[in-house]
Amino acid sequence: MFNSTSSLLTALAQLLGARAVLTDADDCAPYFKGARYGDGSALAVLRPDTHEQVVEIVRLCAEHSQAIVLQGANTGLVAASTPDASGRLMVLSLDRLKRHIEIDAVNRSVTVDAGVSLQDLNEALAPHGLFFPIDLGANPSIGGMIAANTGGARLIKYGDVRQNLLGLRAVLMQPAGQELNLLSALRKNNTGPDLKQLFVGSSGAYGIMTRAVLQVHRLPKQSATALVVPRDQAAVLELLQVLERDCGEFLSAFEGISGAALQAVLQHIPGISNPFAPEGVPEYCVLVELNSTSDPALSGIDLDSLLMSCLENLFGDVVENAVIGRAEDLWRIRHAISEALRHQGKMIAFDISMPRSRMAQFRDAGLALIADNYPWMRVMDFGHWGDGGCHFNMVWPASASIAYSSDVAQEIRTRIYDLVVNEFEGSFSAEHGVGPYNLDFYRRYTSDAARQLSGGIQNLLDPHSLLGLTRFS
Amino acid sequence: MFNSTSSLLTALAQLLGARAVLTDADDCAPYFKGARYGDGSALAVLRPDTHEQVVEIVRLCAEHSQAIVLQGANTGLVAASTPDASGRLMVLSLDRLKRHIEIDAVNRSVTVDAGVSLQDLNEALAPHGLFFPIDLGANPSIGGMIAANTGGARLIKYGDVRQNLLGLRAVLMQPAGQELNLLSALRKNNTGPDLKQLFVGSSGAYGIMTRAVLQVHRLPKQSATALVVPRDQAAVLELLQVLERDCGEFLSAFEGISGAALQAVLQHIPGISNPFAPEGVPEYCVLVELNSTSDPALSGIDLDSLLMSCLENLFGDVVENAVIGRAEDLWRIRHAISEALRHQGKMIAFDISMPRSRMAQFRDAGLALIADNYPWMRVMDFGHWGDGGCHFNMVWPASASIAYSSDVAQEIRTRIYDLVVNEFEGSFSAEHGVGPYNLDFYRRYTSDAARQLSGGIQNLLDPHSLLGLTRFS
Repeated sequence: MFNSTSSLLTALAQLLGARAVLTDADDCAPYFKGARYGDGSALAVLRPDTHEQVVEIVRLCAEHSQAIVLQGANTGLVAASTPDASGRLMVLSLDRLKRHIEIDAVNRSVTVDAGVSLQDLNEALAPHGLFFPIDLGANPSIGGMIAANTGGARLIKYGDVRQNLLGLRAVLMQPAGQELNLLSALRKNNTGPDLKQLFVGSSGAYGIMTRAVLQVHRLPKQSATALVVPRDQAAVLELLQVLERDCGEFLSAFEGISGAALQAVLQHIPGISNPFAPEGVPEYCVLVELNSTSDPALSGIDLDSLLMSCLENLFGDVVENAVIGRAEDLWRIRHAISEALRHQGKMIAFDISMPRSRMAQFRDAGLALIADNYPWMRVMDFGHWGDGGCHFNMVWPASASIAYSSDVAQEIRTRIYDLVVNEFEGSFSAEHGVGPYNLDFYRRYTSDAARQLSGGIQNLLDPHSLLGLTRFS
Repeated sequence: MFNSTSSLLTALAQLLGARAVLTDADDCAPYFKGARYGDGSALAVLRPDTHEQVVEIVRLCAEHSQAIVLQGANTGLVAASTPDASGRLMVLSLDRLKRHIEIDAVNRSVTVDAGVSLQDLNEALAPHGLFFPIDLGANPSIGGMIAANTGGARLIKYGDVRQNLLGLRAVLMQPAGQELNLLSALRKNNTGPDLKQLFVGSSGAYGIMTRAVLQVHRLPKQSATALVVPRDQAAVLELLQVLERDCGEFLSAFEGISGAALQAVLQHIPGISNPFAPEGVPEYCVLVELNSTSDPALSGIDLDSLLMSCLENLFGDVVENAVIGRAEDLWRIRHAISEALRHQGKMIAFDISMPRSRMAQFRDAGLALIADNYPWMRVMDFGHWGDGGCHFNMVWPASASIAYSSDVAQEIRTRIYDLVVNEFEGSFSAEHGVGPYNLDFYRRYTSDAARQLSGGIQNLLDPHSLLGLTRFS
C-alpha cells in the first residue's frame, strides 16, 4: 500500500467514520464477488450514507488519482459493480444511502435515495395503493436499476426503468465532486438535452447517481394468470397478437417457458408440481397475465372470464392446452427457473433480445445451431416474448461426455450472439447492461461511430478513468 | 454572396437536382417563417429525398464551413427550425425525405423516414389496426417530433415520443457526414449508453435524424368522453385521482379548460355551441377521456357506463356538472382553443409543466400575479392536468387601455416562468423544446453543471457550430 493510499484511507475514515470504511477481508468479501460474474478485491469498501459524503469521497479520490467502482445491492449480472483482480480499486457502495423515500401520491411519483432497495420502495408505496412495477427475480437498489435500465417481466405494460424515470441527481468525476441536480418530478420537460438519460443503462460509468424521482403506478385490483400451451412456436406469436387485440391494455406479462426449463423446476425446486398433470410437461408453454387497476365494482370486468373466453376461442387451433391458476403458483414456476438451471450443471446464460416478430425463427435457428455443433448442451430457454427479451440459457451437464471448457463456452456465446445480432437484428444484452463480463462483445457489435461518441462523452465525464471498469471507446 | 457560396450552391444543385435547391424568394418564403416565432432568411433551402443526399450535403457544407438549420414540417413553436435574420444560413428541409414506411405488425413497430408526417404515418398504420398515439393540434414530421420530444394530450396513457422511440439513424456533423446507425426495433436493449436519447428533445442541435423506429399501439375499440365541471380547482386534482383509482388503465386524457378559453372558442369558432347550455359557461371544466383496446364483446366493458357511474359517485361533492358527449364534438372544442385565442388579441403563450400535485396552487398564484400586476391581461389557460402540462396562455386585448409592449410581454413571461420554476418545481418548456425563442430562459434556469455538460457534448458533435441556432453551453 502506497503512502498516498494510506493517507487517503485516513481521510476517508475521518469523513465517513471508521466503520463505514471496510478493509477487513471478511467484511469486504460480500462486496468483492458478483451475483453471477466478477470476483476480485479492492483496497477498501466505502459506505457513505449521504449525498454530501459521496461528493467528498469523489473529491478525495480524484485528488489521490484513486479509481473507484460503484456498487448498489450487488445483484448485477455483468460484473460492472465488483472490483477487478488488481486489488487497486476502491468499492463505493451505496447500500447505506437510503434515508430518503418521499411519496407524492397525487403526482404518482416518489423521490428516493439510490441505495433504497426495490422491495423497500414497494413496501413504502403499498399503503398508498402504489408500486414501482419493474418485476425482477432479484432485489436490486434503485441506483443499480437505473444503471442497468432493468426491464423485467411486465415491461409490456409498464415500460422499463427509463420510461419511469422523472428525475435524477448525480455526482460527477469531472469536475470532481460536481453535483448535477436534475431532480424534477415532471412528466413533460424538454428544456434542452435530457441529461439524465446519459446515466440510464450506462453501468454507472458516467457518474454516481445518489437520488432519483420515479413515476409509480397504481397497484392492480385484479389479475388473471394462465399457463398456455401453444400449438407450436409460430403459434406463440399468434397468441401474443390475439391477446393484444382482445385483451388490449390488460395484458401485463407474456413469458415463454421451454419444456426443459419447466422440467428442471419440477425436478429441483421443492413444492412445485406439474401444473399440467396428469398430462406430461409440454414442449413449450407461456405464462400469460392480465391485470387491471380499474374498479371491478364499477366496470364489471372479470379478467378470469375474459382470459378464459379469449383462450377458448383459440382452442384446437392456436392453443392446445391451458391452465388458469393462482398467480402466485404460476409465477413461482417462472421465477424458479434460474435457480433450477443451476442444479443441472454449468450454466451459460443469455440475455438477448430481438424484434418480437423474429423470435420463433430465432429459437429454431438457435436450437439447430446448438444441436448440430454442441449436441451435449441442453438448452433450457425462457423469455419475455411480450417485449422481445429471450434468456436462451443452456446447461453444460456435469454428466456430459465432454468436460466443461471455458473456451468452448465462450465460442458458444459468440456464435449465439452473432446469430441474434447479425441475422435477427437483435441485441447481445437486453436488460443486464454492459460490464467487464461482456465488454468484448460490446466492442464486437458496436459501430465505430457509436463507440467514438460514447467514449467521447465518457472522456468528458471521466477523463482520468477513475470511475468503473467499463470504457466505451 | 461569396464565391465559395456560389460554388457550394452549384455543387448542391448537382447533387440534389436544381429543383431541390430553392433560392427563389417565393419558393423559400414558407421555409423562412416559423409557425409561431422565427422569421428570417437564408441563402437557400435544400430538400434532399434520401439519407445519402443528407450525408453529402453535410460533407459539402462542412467543407465550405456553411452553417445549416434543420427543418421538418416547420410546425415547431420555439423558432428552432427557421433561419435567423443574418441570411447566411442554409435551411436543410427534410420534407421530401419520406419514402420509407415499413410496418412490423407483430412487433408493433414501424420504421419511418424523418420527413414523414404524423398524419401520413397514421394513415399507413390504420389498416393494421395500429396508430402512433401522440395527439397534437399540428401535423409535424416524425423527425421534428423527436427533436422536440412532443407529448400531446394522451401522454398519460401512451407516454411521449421518447417512450415510444425504439431506434434512430442520424447524420453527424463531426466527423462530417458520419452515419450513426441505431436503427433497431428492440424494446429491451442495453448495450452501453443509449445514444439515440441524445437526439430526443435536443431541437436537432446534436445531429440530423433521417430515420426512426417507433413503437406503435393498437387503435382503441371504444372510448368515452365527458366534459366535467369540478367544484373548484382543488377538486380537479381530486377528480384526477378518483379517475385513476376507478378507471385505471382506461384513462387516456384529462385536459383542463378555463371558462375564458371555452368562451373564446364559442365566440370565434363557427359551429361550436356551449355543451352546457342552457346553463352558462362554467368557470373551469375538464375534458375526460377513457379508451380501451380490449374487445368489448369478450370483456363486456362499456366505458360510457363506467365513466357515468364514476362521475355519479362524485356528484354534489367533487363534481358539479358533467356532459357525456360525442368524442369528436368535445375534442373539437379542446383543439380549437389556440385558434380562438388568436382572435382575442396578442397572445402570450406558455408551455409550462409542474408536478401534478402543484397545479391547483400554481393556477391560483399565476392568476393572482397577473390580476395584481397586469390587470388588463386576460388569462385563458388550458392544460394537460394528467401529465402536469399547462398552457397558461393569456391575451393582451386589442381593446386594452395600455398598448401592447413587447418588453412588458417579456416581463410577464419571465415572472410566470420564475414562478413555475422557482416556486413550483416546474419547467419553462414542457413539450415545445428549446430554440432561439426561449434560449435566454434556458440559460436563466439551467444550472452551470448542466449547461457545461450539454455544451460539452455539443462541442463533440458540432465543434464548428454549423448545425442549428441553439447552443447549450
